[in-house]
Amino acid sequence: MTQIAVLGYGTVGSGVVEVLKTNHESISKKAGQEINIKYVLDLRDFPEDPIQEKIVHDYNIILNDPEVKVVVEVMGGVEPAYTFSKQALLAGKSVCTSNKELVARHGTELLKLAKERNLNYLFEASCGGGIPIIRPLNSSLTADEIDEITGILNGTTNYILTKMIQEGSDFDDVLKQAQALGYAERNPEADVEGYDACRKIAILSSLAFDKQVDYQDIYTEGITKITTADIRYAKALGMTIKLLAYSRKLEGHYFAMVAPFLLGPNDPLYSVNGVFNAIFVHGNVLGDAMFYGSGAGKFPTASAVVADVVDEVMHQGETIPVYWGEEKLTLDDLNDSRRRFLVRVKGDAASDLAAVEAVFGHVDPVSVPELTGEFAFVTGVISEAEYKEKAEKLGTVISRIRVRHLHA
Amino acid sequence: MTQIAVLGYGTVGSGVVEVLKTNHESISKKAGQEINIKYVLDLRDFPEDPIQEKIVHDYNIILNDPEVKVVVEVMGGVEPAYTFSKQALLAGKSVCTSNKELVARHGTELLKLAKERNLNYLFEASCGGGIPIIRPLNSSLTADEIDEITGILNGTTNYILTKMIQEGSDFDDVLKQAQALGYAERNPEADVEGYDACRKIAILSSLAFDKQVDYQDIYTEGITKITTADIRYAKALGMTIKLLAYSRKLEGHYFAMVAPFLLGPNDPLYSVNGVFNAIFVHGNVLGDAMFYGSGAGKFPTASAVVADVVDEVMHQGETIPVYWGEEKLTLDDLNDSRRRFLVRVKGDAASDLAAVEAVFGHVDPVSVPELTGEFAFVTGVISEAEYKEKAEKLGTVISRIRVRHLHA
Repeated sequence: MTQIAVLGYGTVGSGVVEVLKTNHESISKKAGQEINIKYVLDLRDFPEDPIQEKIVHDYNIILNDPEVKVVVEVMGGVEPAYTFSKQALLAGKSVCTSNKELVARHGTELLKLAKERNLNYLFEASCGGGIPIIRPLNSSLTADEIDEITGILNGTTNYILTKMIQEGSDFDDVLKQAQALGYAERNPEADVEGYDACRKIAILSSLAFDKQVDYQDIYTEGITKITTADIRYAKALGMTIKLLAYSRKLEGHYFAMVAPFLLGPNDPLYSVNGVFNAIFVHGNVLGDAMFYGSGAGKFPTASAVVADVVDEVMHQGETIPVYWGEEKLTLDDLNDSRRRFLVRVKGDAASDLAAVEAVFGHVDPVSVPELTGEFAFVTGVISEAEYKEKAEKLGTVISRIRVRHLHA
Repeated sequence: MTQIAVLGYGTVGSGVVEVLKTNHESISKKAGQEINIKYVLDLRDFPEDPIQEKIVHDYNIILNDPEVKVVVEVMGGVEPAYTFSKQALLAGKSVCTSNKELVARHGTELLKLAKERNLNYLFEASCGGGIPIIRPLNSSLTADEIDEITGILNGTTNYILTKMIQEGSDFDDVLKQAQALGYAERNPEADVEGYDACRKIAILSSLAFDKQVDYQDIYTEGITKITTADIRYAKALGMTIKLLAYSRKLEGHYFAMVAPFLLGPNDPLYSVNGVFNAIFVHGNVLGDAMFYGSGAGKFPTASAVVADVVDEVMHQGETIPVYWGEEKLTLDDLNDSRRRFLVRVKGDAASDLAAVEAVFGHVDPVSVPELTGEFAFVTGVISEAEYKEKAEKLGTVISRIRVRHLHA
């Protein structure tokens, strides 16, 4: 039997406790032994809950108990989660976590610490909730050099965009709905500004490219500026709009970005709707693959955390390989990254197309009956720098949305 | 350095050789050592190909060479692949394979043999080509009890159905096109009759339920009877038709089947088109997940095979857990499985609906302008037995297609 401790009895923590109970038999079989929760650390008491007998308020009780081999950190936030995780590893305990903020910020250090001590630091639940993606990257795609990861990594923004597209509603209205339903936080900034997706793509990129990708280096643009007018154009083009987090290796150059993108119906990410997440991976021999599922929620997230617990229980005294090099990856200047853009401009297609084509070359104008005094077009494949230069030169641009480029 | 041997220099075998060469550096890093192909077994010679120096025609050379630690069986077919795999394991060599026929037929025995000798028998490429699905089932979804696997597991039939739906073409015409493009074999029976998908779902079910599922026990219906008329009704309902291979655990009962199904747009499998494959998995805590990618092809398949090679090189002397119990799983009588059916009947909705409703209860008739003298309807949720009884009683049924039931 292996004793474990859970740090935090919130949504995920209580989910972990419940999953270990519900599937006790099958989990014990797979782990090769019983797994017992000895302690649950929380500031609060839960007098009505049988968990109360395991509740401790002092982390030292867990740290100083040599029976505890695995610490499940599901507190969220950087501190005290970071200090607690480090202390656990220094005390010879493996750690698993759902904490993307902490992994994005201190993953390199905590992985190193674990490896030096023949321990494990696992974080399957930090990206894509219940979707198995970290483990497949580490242990399934070993024959491949991964050259692209593109994810719909935030359920809140995907829910909002899906509703905006399906119902033609405004961002603000849908956000309020999402908050009422519990799909968005009262302070939605981390989601709608793309910060959450940014941390997740930093983690996935570190694994894909076996280097340390700093989330602060990733250009991040949220969905707050997407309007119903943008959506009308997307529909006119038979496309949809998704908040994508991507990183890409191209001829030795690395690019990463979080931003809203237009996607066509042939894109596997096109039909990932509502609160679902999906991660598209392109390997140099595998080609396209996609992993789809619930990106958040108590039980999907707990499923991923408990899978890490099982792995850590099975691999005591042995570090499971994680390919996340210590060397920092220098991302290339985004100005050099190339794609098409949907550009909305003031004017009228009949009279103002010539001015547009004088700058952007031949384009097909797109008009939407409801939107007068403007039209739109999709550019050829140009760099971000070229786009900026041309947009400035034209002087009539209302907005632009990037178009996702599919592998040939 | 670990020496390996490849059995069969056909499409997959030459792909394996090429992948090990192309990604030599990253693969060596992940395996923790160099991997060298010492022999390639083939009946033929390849005088123009540098592989010639490794070609052997006598399997005993490989068997008797103690340096060879991993045998890659990519010959296809049951014999001599079965005998060769068994001999390799008996000689202390791990085996990996892309051979679904062999795994479906003798997986239980070969896995047992490997385990008894601290060896590995891995088969990631046998289902879903390059899609990581076997390894996630074994090592990612360990917290879950899996209660459903539903796959689009055959690229040929998915290509044919996609073309029939997108272009309104006949089965025979699209099959000829697919054969011309190399997407279908000259003898397409194994694909279009569902036998290939049947073997794959038997393998996946054995892993999901940790028991031995015999592919002969799985009811299998191909796509040869799907007509353009069926497709017109599917479109009228806003649905599509896919060849699904599924298995399901429901209140202690197990059902499995391969058959064409109607799917709605909210189904994650709805937009899996062309030669792509996808595997939908439902776990009791995870909820819905889906794995998508190239289900066949030289390089995607080789990617999966080489991932197995890496695992076997890394785990010499240690069996990686595979949950495929020796106990035979008894599937329940399909007559008890319940779902909706799309039923096409002779007659006219205006005058013959009453007769239908007398047998099937209230239904909404569906008519398609191009199809006169018939109409269709979707039944309530009834068992296969009830459907048969009612269809016989009505006496005017032209055909029926099952409707996929989504988890609530």
